[in-house]
Amino acid sequence: MTRTPPRLAIGVDLGGTKIHAAVVDSEGTVVSSHRLGTDVEGGPSRVVEDIAHAVRTGLGANLSEIEAVGVGVAGQIEAESGVVRSSPNLKWTDFPFGERLQQALGIPVVVENDVRAATWGEWRHGAGRGMDDFLVLYVGTGVGGGIVSDGRLLTGDRGMAGEVGHMTVVAGGRECTCPNRGCLEAYVGGWAIAERAVGAVLANHEAGRGLLDRARGEELTARLVSETAAAGDDLAVQLMDETGRYLGAGLVGLLHIFNPARVVFGGGVIEGSPGLVDTADSVVRASAIPAYADGLEIRRSELEGNAAVIGSASLALNRVVSRQNQL
Amino acid sequence: MTRTPPRLAIGVDLGGTKIHAAVVDSEGTVVSSHRLGTDVEGGPSRVVEDIAHAVRTGLGANLSEIEAVGVGVAGQIEAESGVVRSSPNLKWTDFPFGERLQQALGIPVVVENDVRAATWGEWRHGAGRGMDDFLVLYVGTGVGGGIVSDGRLLTGDRGMAGEVGHMTVVAGGRECTCPNRGCLEAYVGGWAIAERAVGAVLANHEAGRGLLDRARGEELTARLVSETAAAGDDLAVQLMDETGRYLGAGLVGLLHIFNPARVVFGGGVIEGSPGLVDTADSVVRASAIPAYADGLEIRRSELEGNAAVIGSASLALNRVVSRQNQL
Repeated sequence: MTRTPPRLAIGVDLGGTKIHAAVVDSEGTVVSSHRLGTDVEGGPSRVVEDIAHAVRTGLGANLSEIEAVGVGVAGQIEAESGVVRSSPNLKWTDFPFGERLQQALGIPVVVENDVRAATWGEWRHGAGRGMDDFLVLYVGTGVGGGIVSDGRLLTGDRGMAGEVGHMTVVAGGRECTCPNRGCLEAYVGGWAIAERAVGAVLANHEAGRGLLDRARGEELTARLVSETAAAGDDLAVQLMDETGRYLGAGLVGLLHIFNPARVVFGGGVIEGSPGLVDTADSVVRASAIPAYADGLEIRRSELEGNAAVIGSASLALNRVVSRQNQL
Repeated sequence: MTRTPPRLAIGVDLGGTKIHAAVVDSEGTVVSSHRLGTDVEGGPSRVVEDIAHAVRTGLGANLSEIEAVGVGVAGQIEAESGVVRSSPNLKWTDFPFGERLQQALGIPVVVENDVRAATWGEWRHGAGRGMDDFLVLYVGTGVGGGIVSDGRLLTGDRGMAGEVGHMTVVAGGRECTCPNRGCLEAYVGGWAIAERAVGAVLANHEAGRGLLDRARGEELTARLVSETAAAGDDLAVQLMDETGRYLGAGLVGLLHIFNPARVVFGGGVIEGSPGLVDTADSVVRASAIPAYADGLEIRRSELEGNAAVIGSASLALNRVVSRQNQL
């Protein structure tokens, strides 16, 4: 087998507060990377300029060697055209982002939803390598996911498939950031863990002393709950155990719907409380229909914070090649 | 455009109590049909013989004109090999059903899960025609579903995708027939509506008088609850309204996960209480993220009781053609 030199692409993870750009090779290795803040108030043209500038000057890359640029954007993306239909975090609506960035850079640009891009990254270069049926669940402040089913990354009718954080797990339950009640995110998202902790402390001030002591007058956060649980505080342990059980309840549903061979967990809440994965795993073993749980693997993300840049770059290389093949 | 005569296949819907066989043409029209009981106690060989006999003598078909036989089986199917991995209703495990029936008939046989076959039928010849992203939800005694996403019918790792009846909608909720608690089926399946009605009557005998009067000492059933609701009884109306709300809560989650353009409802409980679809629809309009609900169509099944035979026949024609093309 002759070995061709790896090809290069740039992956960009574009969020409402930060931009993470990286040169990534075709084997999924991050060659160089750069971070900057997102100037949402400057409007979409400003963000295009900032990304173009970062790509040209911040990555130490010879742009003539870069075959494609992929950008993962939080929001509703029309992948074919590169139009960002709606991104609440960026305050963009119907912005032809791919076209504009391509004009600015002179390199083919591919745009995808950030979580779907990260799922692609885990699929090609991370914890989902070689799988035809696997799910990624990112549990951070919000909860998102990506679905590979029968060897394809699902997009849905308008490119919005995968919002597993907004599946109902408690009909009529806690209010969510979306119009629904009882969403998975409303129990296990970082903001929800914090809210549930506040509720528990208000309900029983005495039991909440451990959390309050650690907070020292600051706001209760998911991170603080998870640290307090790690220190053995009863209420915090209980809160995190319940969180794992809700996560497991949601996961059992997803298994029955998709019958995946592997589930990959990532995101800040999981990084802070890896025990959540064990709790969810034990819920699955006890509660899923056995044929769905037998042989199922539950793993942690391998790419973590680099999943979106690696996935965006890989997806961009892949799509540019398939477009060339169509010509 | 020249018009070729429609091609013919036989579709068989094989359940634990009845067998429904039909000659179906390539336009999805049922040409003739035949029903018989399933002799589960006679074992799998007996069922193969009964189906072969029914196909030869019960359908008035000239077998030389039949290109393929498709069978939809309740259970876990390995579609490639035609092996029934597990069918609790038929009490079969790892039975090479496709091979045996093909030997008995001398016609290519294709085996698929019954709900997936029915979904295929709605996709090609019913309420899902022309859609790339749509879901079918069958609400009968149990709750099952089929998923077409990005133009493909999902199967999952072991051919078990689509068990949407066993997605958690109330974490820690009502016991289900599966090991999980709080499944959608445990609220909206026919058996669950009956159980919830019994619970409501026991909790308030006075309010339950309408249901008890109509039952006349017989068991409460979902059908009876739905008829009593149609007659205006308060408790029965409340039970069916709650059923629609649980159905809506589950559906909202499915929309966020799959982003379909259309959802199709079928099954005996829906046929008995079409108002459930309206309730679920209004829950979706109020609770789904607007971009997922805008433009979404919610419809009733067009093929109803014929969906599995039409779908099995159509799937069989389709697979036999694609196998021939591979040669």
